[in-house]
Amino acid sequence: MTADIGVTGLAVMGRNLARNLARHGYTVAVHNRTAARTEALVAEYGHEGKFVPAFSMEDFVASLDRPRRVIVMVKAGAPTDAVIDELAPLLEPGDMIVDGGNAHFEDTRRREAALRERGIHFVGTGISGGEEGALLGPSIMPGGSAEAYASVGPILETIAAKVDGTPCCTHVGPDGAGHFVKMVHNGIEYADMQLIAEAYDLLRQATGATPADLAAVFREWNTGELESFLIEITAEVLGHVDAATGRPFVDIVLDQAEQKGTGRWTVQVALELGVPVTGIAEAVFARSLSGHAAQRAATRSLPGPRGQADPGDAARLTEDVRRALYASKIVAYAQGFDQIAAASEAYGWEIDRGALATIWRGGCIIRARFLDRIRAAYQADPALPSLLCDPYFTQVVAEAQESWRRVVATAATLGVPVPGFASALSYYDALRRDRLPAALIQGLRDFFGAHTYRRVDRDGAYHTLWSGDRSEVQA
Amino acid sequence: MTADIGVTGLAVMGRNLARNLARHGYTVAVHNRTAARTEALVAEYGHEGKFVPAFSMEDFVASLDRPRRVIVMVKAGAPTDAVIDELAPLLEPGDMIVDGGNAHFEDTRRREAALRERGIHFVGTGISGGEEGALLGPSIMPGGSAEAYASVGPILETIAAKVDGTPCCTHVGPDGAGHFVKMVHNGIEYADMQLIAEAYDLLRQATGATPADLAAVFREWNTGELESFLIEITAEVLGHVDAATGRPFVDIVLDQAEQKGTGRWTVQVALELGVPVTGIAEAVFARSLSGHAAQRAATRSLPGPRGQADPGDAARLTEDVRRALYASKIVAYAQGFDQIAAASEAYGWEIDRGALATIWRGGCIIRARFLDRIRAAYQADPALPSLLCDPYFTQVVAEAQESWRRVVATAATLGVPVPGFASALSYYDALRRDRLPAALIQGLRDFFGAHTYRRVDRDGAYHTLWSGDRSEVQA
Repeated sequence: MTADIGVTGLAVMGRNLARNLARHGYTVAVHNRTAARTEALVAEYGHEGKFVPAFSMEDFVASLDRPRRVIVMVKAGAPTDAVIDELAPLLEPGDMIVDGGNAHFEDTRRREAALRERGIHFVGTGISGGEEGALLGPSIMPGGSAEAYASVGPILETIAAKVDGTPCCTHVGPDGAGHFVKMVHNGIEYADMQLIAEAYDLLRQATGATPADLAAVFREWNTGELESFLIEITAEVLGHVDAATGRPFVDIVLDQAEQKGTGRWTVQVALELGVPVTGIAEAVFARSLSGHAAQRAATRSLPGPRGQADPGDAARLTEDVRRALYASKIVAYAQGFDQIAAASEAYGWEIDRGALATIWRGGCIIRARFLDRIRAAYQADPALPSLLCDPYFTQVVAEAQESWRRVVATAATLGVPVPGFASALSYYDALRRDRLPAALIQGLRDFFGAHTYRRVDRDGAYHTLWSGDRSEVQA
Repeated sequence: MTADIGVTGLAVMGRNLARNLARHGYTVAVHNRTAARTEALVAEYGHEGKFVPAFSMEDFVASLDRPRRVIVMVKAGAPTDAVIDELAPLLEPGDMIVDGGNAHFEDTRRREAALRERGIHFVGTGISGGEEGALLGPSIMPGGSAEAYASVGPILETIAAKVDGTPCCTHVGPDGAGHFVKMVHNGIEYADMQLIAEAYDLLRQATGATPADLAAVFREWNTGELESFLIEITAEVLGHVDAATGRPFVDIVLDQAEQKGTGRWTVQVALELGVPVTGIAEAVFARSLSGHAAQRAATRSLPGPRGQADPGDAARLTEDVRRALYASKIVAYAQGFDQIAAASEAYGWEIDRGALATIWRGGCIIRARFLDRIRAAYQADPALPSLLCDPYFTQVVAEAQESWRRVVATAATLGVPVPGFASALSYYDALRRDRLPAALIQGLRDFFGAHTYRRVDRDGAYHTLWSGDRSEVQA
């Protein structure tokens, strides 16, 4: 029996992806560096479909139909290179390697170029949805050649999540495009979670609501325009009670957020591309701050308000926070999609942002009702200069902004940190400005470093002789 | 005649540094890739001291006393490597190369290691102060071996700026330490300028003050605790009138701020080190945003307040903004010094932050009265967990914070972007928190990705079986 496709690397993500494939009728070759995982998979889940276990890379490759399709599900970095080095010599021109790990897109570009020289297609593929998504239908973001997508794409579309019958899988673009958009997906996920955390925190501080009260608030919010997986599970987490202590679960969890790196990558790459992703940056830094336990212990007693607002305002504040959350979330997504547009331009990827929003509607962590609005916005105008220019989003933010401004002002007054809300509002207000004080910055730069400036009324670069007679010279 | 020291690369910074050395009595060998610059230097400034012009690298090296001290003043990146490649074969063990360009500290680490193998000392040196500083006394931040500093340090100290008789030059630490702190210096400079720009912008928008009025405000501020070079030249730039149009200079400058890269590097490296430098990040992103002309044109009409506050509040708002500026500036410096501490720890540099604050009091762009307070703070407690813990700074921020909160609230209400002020306030309020909503983020991460969490009441990593019976298991 030859297999339609193979999966090497059978930790939880690889195993579930293999099961997903088998459940959809594909014959799946399975291989793992250590045999035990391969055996366990077949023993436990062999009844779910047709698996072809292989205990050497040679047997694994030999068991595959041509052109061969191999999904690699190992850790990003050196382990991925090691598997490719073992696999590639066994493959032939036209075969394809699908890397489903969380690789950095620059590694993917390097690997794709190297394998292309040998005639092997390398399909760097972002997969989001966690363990459960891998089994039941993830959002899949494959990059690489159109030729490879023609062969492996239909299989990936079959196992992807579906929304309104449309699979959450599309050919994102060449070489590193798939892993790039997965990285930005994760960056947006950081921003999303930070905003949710701020909403919860401000409401709890300002109104004295309990986690259980706030679970109900988030459950209610999940019936409206904020409807999304993250809002849904926020209600679940806030409503959960710790069995050992009887206390709200969120109060027994150590408040030091961890991170695995894709959020940080997103910001580092955005800095390189010159795209302001302040929402993601503030989210990444808020996690870093939370983890500095010794510093926090030393600064805990710094003075400032720790008070509560007039609880009579609770209902209005709750609605204000809901609107501020939605407006800030729109800003975070606008920034993320701008970063994707900038990379698409820089690398010649021609990414269709509408198609991308389409495949993020289901399967992935940031899946949300409003991604359908983003899909519609970019389908109406593929060159939309900012998501905020789309009529729907313009209107939402217009309606939300009094609330948004009150929330930022209230938080500042009460001493509750809202780096995500405040930064998003400043971004919005900066975009709207006819003139920015960047002109002053240019003047200062010219003063101390002769960096020159441009003028509003004619072309060219100019310098003022600041330590001379202050006349202007053309540079 | 043999020379005490040589300078290769005679663009404006190199030329002025050579003149500074000669004016202090050193015999200075001078060399440039093209002879014209060498000739011009000697023709124009030969009377200032003893120059030894050289027209080949061989002659240049031959003209130096041993051990040879060569200052390289060429563009960072490939040009620096090219000069080193040409120079190093002509040197002997014990000689030293001082790189005074704006190198990335990782390049400096690489070069230092490579040259160390050949017995040559590589002194990666940050130099701040612009053209004028190079001539009249810059702030100098040399990294490298103690042995090299013993030889070249006294010369650099002689030509550095002096504050209270103390030279603005100290041995920062091994290999990349000098260029690292110069990078952070520049990052802080970005944050400083952004905060100044926000102060100017908010006051202008909210009170209708003219640039000339605000020049007077900054001039007044420069007599108090904000006294600094950047505040001083802000008054100069705001007070300047464009001769061609008769309009305020700041109104004829194109409002698109440019950047050369060190601010971006600072944030990228801080992300790697896990240190929140939100003030620098917001400043870098504010510049990026200002440069996206097409996007700004498309978003200019987005709705929101463009109004003015009651002008009757002008005096109070001005004092509020002054205090907010000082408090936000303290946060930006606290973050920058934290980043230096983290790098010092990561690379084993043992950087003395008090000594660093001492040499930033003069010569450099961020020179300011309050750096003497930073010096005092770190001298009193070299292991200070945050600048904000120092009694002086704690008190300043305590006194400033009602103003600071009013400024952020007012800006949010009026629709004026204050990413720097708002982000600094959120950082301060986050540091003060007993519990942060990072606990909720950890709960969400465990829910969708089984990333586990720690508990406040016992050690270990835990996971809740969210899609099972919601019991807790040890990971």
